[in-house]
Amino acid sequence: MTVKAYMFDVFGTCVDWRTGVANVARLWFEKKGLGLDPLTFADEWRFEYQPSMEKVRSGKRGFVPLEILHLENLRTVLERHSILDELSNEELLELNNAWEQLPAWRDVVPGLVTLKNHAIIAPCSNGSLSIMTRLAKFASLPWDVILGAQIAGQYKPHPNAYLNSVKALRLEPHEVMMVAAHNSDLEAAQSCGLKTAFIQRPTEYGANQTEDLQPTGHWNLEISSFGELSTLKH
Amino acid sequence: MTVKAYMFDVFGTCVDWRTGVANVARLWFEKKGLGLDPLTFADEWRFEYQPSMEKVRSGKRGFVPLEILHLENLRTVLERHSILDELSNEELLELNNAWEQLPAWRDVVPGLVTLKNHAIIAPCSNGSLSIMTRLAKFASLPWDVILGAQIAGQYKPHPNAYLNSVKALRLEPHEVMMVAAHNSDLEAAQSCGLKTAFIQRPTEYGANQTEDLQPTGHWNLEISSFGELSTLKH
Repeated sequence: MTVKAYMFDVFGTCVDWRTGVANVARLWFEKKGLGLDPLTFADEWRFEYQPSMEKVRSGKRGFVPLEILHLENLRTVLERHSILDELSNEELLELNNAWEQLPAWRDVVPGLVTLKNHAIIAPCSNGSLSIMTRLAKFASLPWDVILGAQIAGQYKPHPNAYLNSVKALRLEPHEVMMVAAHNSDLEAAQSCGLKTAFIQRPTEYGANQTEDLQPTGHWNLEISSFGELSTLKH
Repeated sequence: MTVKAYMFDVFGTCVDWRTGVANVARLWFEKKGLGLDPLTFADEWRFEYQPSMEKVRSGKRGFVPLEILHLENLRTVLERHSILDELSNEELLELNNAWEQLPAWRDVVPGLVTLKNHAIIAPCSNGSLSIMTRLAKFASLPWDVILGAQIAGQYKPHPNAYLNSVKALRLEPHEVMMVAAHNSDLEAAQSCGLKTAFIQRPTEYGANQTEDLQPTGHWNLEISSFGELSTLKH
C-alpha cells in the first residue's frame, strides 16, 4: 500500500510560528516604543485562533480565509493591552502578515525536497492560499499544490477539511498520509481514513510546553525528522 | 508598477497537449488494434472542450472539475468512431489521464525556474487541481500554488476564473500578469484589469495552425520565450 500523497499541518509542524511572529512583532513594538513582550504577544494572538475558527466550524459564521480571523484576533489582543490605536490600519495589515514570515524547522526543507521525488506533497493547513503561498516562498517549502481549509471551505479538525483536500487530489483517504505535530489533528485525519505520522515539536509553544510531547494515538508512523518519511516503510 | 504574480494558461501555452495526448492514445490504440489516427483523435477530443465548458459558464450546469468533462468528451469521440466498447471503464480512466502527461515546450521550465525567484507563479488553467498537480510533476513545472477554474468555481474565459484567482492571492488585478498563447484568454484577462503577455505557440494545433499566430490585441508584452518574463521591463 503506497502513500501517493503526504499532507502536512504547517503552523507548528513545518514552521516555528512562535519565534516567527515574535520576531516580526518585536520590530513593530520597538519602532512604536511599546513595552509588550513579543513572545507573550505571539502566544496571546495564537490563543484566539481556535475560538475564532470554531465559529466557522460550528456553522455560526460562513467560511472566511484565515487572514481575516488573524486580523480580528490581532485587534482583540492589541485592544486588550490598550495599544490598538498605536498602529494604523495599514500597519495592522503588515503586522498581520507575520504569519507569512515563519522559519521552517531545520529538517523540513531537505525532507520535503526528497519526498517530492516520491509522492505529492501538500499543506493541509488552516492557512489560506495566500498565506500558504507567501509562507512557502519565505521558507522555501516546495509544495506541489496548496490544499487545506480554503479549498475545502472548512477548518480543521472538521472532517471536510481533510476529505475535500483528498478529493481534490482524486485520491482515496487511505492513499494519503497526514503529517502533524498535534495529536488532535491526526485523530481527526485518522477518523477520515487517512494514514497518520506524528512528529514531536517540543518547543512549538516555548520551553515550558506540556502538550503533544508524545504521540497519544495509534499513528502509522512516529518520526523525528521529515527525512524519515522517504525512508521508512509504511 | 511591479508585477507580483504571473498566472499562466497551461494547455497550449506551457505544454504541448496535442503531441502528449496523441502519444498516450497511440499506445492504447496499438494495444487494442484500433486504426484511429492519434493526432486526429487528440484534435477531436480537444474540439469537444469548449462546448462542454460552455454549459458550466452559461449556468446550465454546476461546476465540475475538468476530468469529468474530459471523460464525457472521450466517450463522445470514441462512440462516434464506434470503438467505445473496446475500452473498459478502468481503461477509459487511464486514457483520460493523458492530460496529465503532456510535455512542456522547451523554454517553459527554465523560464519558470528563474521567474519563481522574482514573483509568485501559478497556473490559471481550466484544468483541475488534480490534473494540474500531476501534470506539474510530469513536466517539472515549479508552481508556487495552483489557481484557476477549480478554486474559482468557474471556467475561463468567464471573468470569475481570473478575478477569484487574483483574489485568492490577496492581490489587485493590475498586480498580476496573465501569460497565454491565446488572444481570447488575454482579452478576458485584460477586461478584468490584469496585465497581459502573449507568446506564440505556432504548432499547438499542428503544422496547419491558423489561429493565434499573431497578437490581435494591445498586450503589455509579446514574448518569444518564458525566459523573457524575468528580463523585460513591464
